[in-house]
Amino acid sequence: MPELVTLITDFGLKDSYVGAMKGVLKTLAPDLEVIDISHEIPSQDVAAAAWVLNGAYPYFPDHTVHVVVVDPGVGTDRKGVAVDTNQGSFIGPDNGVFSGILSTHKGAKIVALENPKLMREKVSSTFHGRDIFAPAAAHLCLGTPLGDFGEGVADPVILEMWEVEEGQNELVGHVVHVDRFGNSLTNLSRDMLVKEGKELSQIRTGDHRFSSIRKTYGDTPSGEAAVLLGSNDMLEIAVTGGDASSRLGIKRGDKVLVRWE
Amino acid sequence: MPELVTLITDFGLKDSYVGAMKGVLKTLAPDLEVIDISHEIPSQDVAAAAWVLNGAYPYFPDHTVHVVVVDPGVGTDRKGVAVDTNQGSFIGPDNGVFSGILSTHKGAKIVALENPKLMREKVSSTFHGRDIFAPAAAHLCLGTPLGDFGEGVADPVILEMWEVEEGQNELVGHVVHVDRFGNSLTNLSRDMLVKEGKELSQIRTGDHRFSSIRKTYGDTPSGEAAVLLGSNDMLEIAVTGGDASSRLGIKRGDKVLVRWE
Amino acid sequence: MPELVTLITDFGLKDSYVGAMKGVLKTLAPDLEVIDISHEIPSQDVAAAAWVLNGAYPYFPDHTVHVVVVDPGVGTDRKGVAVDTNQGSFIGPDNGVFSGILSTHKGAKIVALENPKLMREKVSSTFHGRDIFAPAAAHLCLGTPLGDFGEGVADPVILEMWEVEEGQNELVGHVVHVDRFGNSLTNLSRDMLVKEGKELSQIRTGDHRFSSIRKTYGDTPSGEAAVLLGSNDMLEIAVTGGDASSRLGIKRGDKVLVRWE
Repeated sequence: MPELVTLITDFGLKDSYVGAMKGVLKTLAPDLEVIDISHEIPSQDVAAAAWVLNGAYPYFPDHTVHVVVVDPGVGTDRKGVAVDTNQGSFIGPDNGVFSGILSTHKGAKIVALENPKLMREKVSSTFHGRDIFAPAAAHLCLGTPLGDFGEGVADPVILEMWEVEEGQNELVGHVVHVDRFGNSLTNLSRDMLVKEGKELSQIRTGDHRFSSIRKTYGDTPSGEAAVLLGSNDMLEIAVTGGDASSRLGIKRGDKVLVRWE
Repeated sequence: MPELVTLITDFGLKDSYVGAMKGVLKTLAPDLEVIDISHEIPSQDVAAAAWVLNGAYPYFPDHTVHVVVVDPGVGTDRKGVAVDTNQGSFIGPDNGVFSGILSTHKGAKIVALENPKLMREKVSSTFHGRDIFAPAAAHLCLGTPLGDFGEGVADPVILEMWEVEEGQNELVGHVVHVDRFGNSLTNLSRDMLVKEGKELSQIRTGDHRFSSIRKTYGDTPSGEAAVLLGSNDMLEIAVTGGDASSRLGIKRGDKVLVRWE
Repeated sequence: MPELVTLITDFGLKDSYVGAMKGVLKTLAPDLEVIDISHEIPSQDVAAAAWVLNGAYPYFPDHTVHVVVVDPGVGTDRKGVAVDTNQGSFIGPDNGVFSGILSTHKGAKIVALENPKLMREKVSSTFHGRDIFAPAAAHLCLGTPLGDFGEGVADPVILEMWEVEEGQNELVGHVVHVDRFGNSLTNLSRDMLVKEGKELSQIRTGDHRFSSIRKTYGDTPSGEAAVLLGSNDMLEIAVTGGDASSRLGIKRGDKVLVRWE
């Protein structure tokens, strides 16, 4: 069973950056297998990378190493990190790209990538994907223990929009992604929406209120707004056959409130 | 020799959909190898997917499983199918994406994907690529017999433009693709254009008539329209150094008539 | 350790061309591994392909075969070549795509791809990627000696912009790439910029003069032009937080002069 390394970057595919990372991976660990998830994350859009990672990693084998390089702070003192969970390992900058993973896997082990022996000999200040993150992924595949990379990180960066506030009878999450159809997807999962012995009474974002969660798009008349569970089992706000984001004025980061009675 | 699975989708590469499918494939069948053919099929363009598949599958090993997910009818009662030929297996919706394969491989075995044991446990109504097609491809690679997936399908969908009507002295095919240079490619192959003891007398589309098939682009003066055999050995209508589609008003689906004497 | 084949083309990913090449590779040499570097080279832009190859190949294992298909002269009498270096092998048209490799590896063995036994049986005049280059790469992986492909090539094409003129106290290179941020990257490497016992006195391109090489972007006030060494250890001309190419009127192919005292 070959070790798997997936890649999510904002490098695009017109340049040599993705190729250079793949070369470093295959040079250090010839038997690993590289799988492209996306290189088309909008430039420097950390929240978009977090969203894409969140939609892909749960489907991979647990021994997969996911590398995310969307890194506007490269060359500053932002940390590089390795995160270990029971659903895969994660390598990238500590800038919020792992918000979804860290809010789901609260007990994840996180270390800083500080050990120069596990980096390329010369580290460029502009291309940590090649010089720090790809080598770290290869070394993880080769069995290097997490502790060898560096010290534990106690307070990794989690984007505010990935936070969920839980009250006794309510829950506040956020819109974390607007897809190309204008559907507004939240960080509230199916599991969070069940409160034993209580009945869901309202879902609200801005001025828009909904009293229940629809089963499928088909249950909603065309042009009408509704909330439902998307293919990832996350709550989403949609307008059947329309663009919920522009119709309802919803944008990424907006709060979504759920109430029970 | 690892099992091969190729992917053709209209998902693009900005989102997690392709990644999720790859994860499911590698989780179920860790030894298979995933090969991207295209994720840039125009959204919901079934005919474009059929064309791209047709240009790629003949070059792959015969044991390859080709997965095509261009699926405007996902969630309706359109079937999912598995097709078995001596030039590879094919998994996807029964909506015409396999038109080229089915018109070439008339005796292909086709079954519906109905067996819930060979799907993901929970099947989303909007993402069969992840929940039905990727698992089916993995199970095929693992050796599951075609019959285990479901009942035979007697009348799979074939797009009208992929049909060829054969008369005694004539043949009617269609333009199935207009490429980015405006070349108009048909579903008429080199083999179909040879009739023993007869001589080709005319090729016609709309008002445009041609009396012979040129050997190469070089045989035609610049700016002149001609028919020739393209790199896939399919008849195409081209304007040397120009755009045949706009110059001659040819579009996908147009009839192309070939006559012998 | 599987053999590696990387691909750089201008085919884009909407069509079947890349898929067909991958199919030929995996059919001839089932155990090789295909790695995409880029299929988004601007159409027919040989210099862009040379640049992308140059930024990727040094990071791959030395046994990798890099295939480059940006080939405006396909079907003319331009040669196909195989190049062997101690940093990988290279397959593609002899049209300048290997300029960077050939100016770095002066003693590289180069042969023409002339042996029809190492091509597909029928060679299309428009798709040598599938019919000549992919088979050649597969045969290299399978151990076919370079000499079996054809005669040596004494004077391969090197783009003028990849040439470096070396005088006693000066060096003339060129801008070989302008990246999406407008940074102007040259073919002058860190090694070339050190002359023992001498001090660098001037770097000039057009009317713009610089007296030293900055360590990092951070050393330069925002909006100011500077020369520095990029992540590939090549000299580049940049404007901190701006677009050097448009601000300074620099374009690909421009001469860059370096002087010592």
